[in-house]
Amino acid sequence: MLSKNEQKKIRLLSEKKYRSKLGLFVAEGLKIVRELVEEGYIFESIFSSKPIGFAPYKLIDKASLKKVSYLTNPDSILGIFKIPKALNDIEIDKFSLALDSVSDPGNLGTIIRLSDWFGIKNIYCSLNTVDCYNPKVVQSSMGSIARVNCQYLDLATFLSKYNSTIYGANLDGLSHYDCSYDQKGILVLGNESHGISSHVNDEIDQFITIMSKADESGAESLNVASACAIMLGEIFRPQSLFKS
Amino acid sequence: MLSKNEQKKIRLLSEKKYRSKLGLFVAEGLKIVRELVEEGYIFESIFSSKPIGFAPYKLIDKASLKKVSYLTNPDSILGIFKIPKALNDIEIDKFSLALDSVSDPGNLGTIIRLSDWFGIKNIYCSLNTVDCYNPKVVQSSMGSIARVNCQYLDLATFLSKYNSTIYGANLDGLSHYDCSYDQKGILVLGNESHGISSHVNDEIDQFITIMSKADESGAESLNVASACAIMLGEIFRPQSLFKS
Repeated sequence: MLSKNEQKKIRLLSEKKYRSKLGLFVAEGLKIVRELVEEGYIFESIFSSKPIGFAPYKLIDKASLKKVSYLTNPDSILGIFKIPKALNDIEIDKFSLALDSVSDPGNLGTIIRLSDWFGIKNIYCSLNTVDCYNPKVVQSSMGSIARVNCQYLDLATFLSKYNSTIYGANLDGLSHYDCSYDQKGILVLGNESHGISSHVNDEIDQFITIMSKADESGAESLNVASACAIMLGEIFRPQSLFKS
Repeated sequence: MLSKNEQKKIRLLSEKKYRSKLGLFVAEGLKIVRELVEEGYIFESIFSSKPIGFAPYKLIDKASLKKVSYLTNPDSILGIFKIPKALNDIEIDKFSLALDSVSDPGNLGTIIRLSDWFGIKNIYCSLNTVDCYNPKVVQSSMGSIARVNCQYLDLATFLSKYNSTIYGANLDGLSHYDCSYDQKGILVLGNESHGISSHVNDEIDQFITIMSKADESGAESLNVASACAIMLGEIFRPQSLFKS
């Protein structure tokens, strides 16, 4: 059984204002909870309907878990974790990502998972980008949130001081196949509907575009996480003509 | 106002069995509904809370639309469309995709949108792959469902007769950067958790893998739609050494 207080806390933590106020977030699913624990995230409580070996936990029945879970098909485990102190770690010696007003939590989670796959440690997010501790972000990052650092800041100001090549994904730039990528560069991806905002656009050194292979009646644009995937695949290809 | 019957029909069409029984599906959002109409999809009804110019419609108030919408934030328009007759069009002169037990509707929708972008006309789906007229698939395809043909069939049998190179994405194949792609080939992508099933595996000519750039603690796998995006980006790169 979960106490009334525990139930209420989990419910409140679906909202950003309570996550910020309490400094906590919720993660569900064995893989995600275990990876957070293994990466040293401090937890307040872990509730599980099955025995686990990697952390102390409170055994609860499935029905209680279902009652508080954010998922349609709840997993066997839910943890309440402390939001780590913001790192404010500006690492310009490695390729990084910047997100301008990305609003869909599934997209941010997928981008975090992609970053983890390609060894990107830092994602710089505009202040209006969806919160990385949103339950759907945590879920779709599949544990990668434990290894990728999302920093929220005034993106235009940050980029204006960024001492490396700034790439921006848009629909009328250089073909992403034809660009030679600075390996210390940063790629800016914009909002799902409106792209990169004008004051961030001013900071871009090189716009790049994924060329469509369809005839004129094809898709007008790609999902931002798909665009991110294709561009990172190209940026990190071994044959890339990296500028030093 | 929507009649009780109309409301009930829209509610029922969220389920595959009623979509199959009635031969209808629901699409929401101006872009998606307009693209379906423009691509010649036959509609039974279009309900809109704003005037539209591209099709006859029934003007309804926002509250009525909100009541029947599948979306958390309903758009101004919802259409009931006829499911087109299955094409059973096997086109082996162009690169195609095959999906084995892909279960997440958002993933299928994203893969349909990617296919549309890269000019892929046919996706061959195993019988247990999520229905392409599932509302979340239609939604995340962003209208591309109107231009990409999803065929449901016994995938292993289909591939056993496929007269071209069959690629399969897995975690221990040839680096996707090192492969030269047959431009009449087909790429098989598997289930989100279990990958490609064993009887489909038997039909694969060449397994390919997206190499991780992270150290050992990085993400264990990629989302299937992200993997699809990265692989299509590579397969369709102009410099690809296509076998003729």
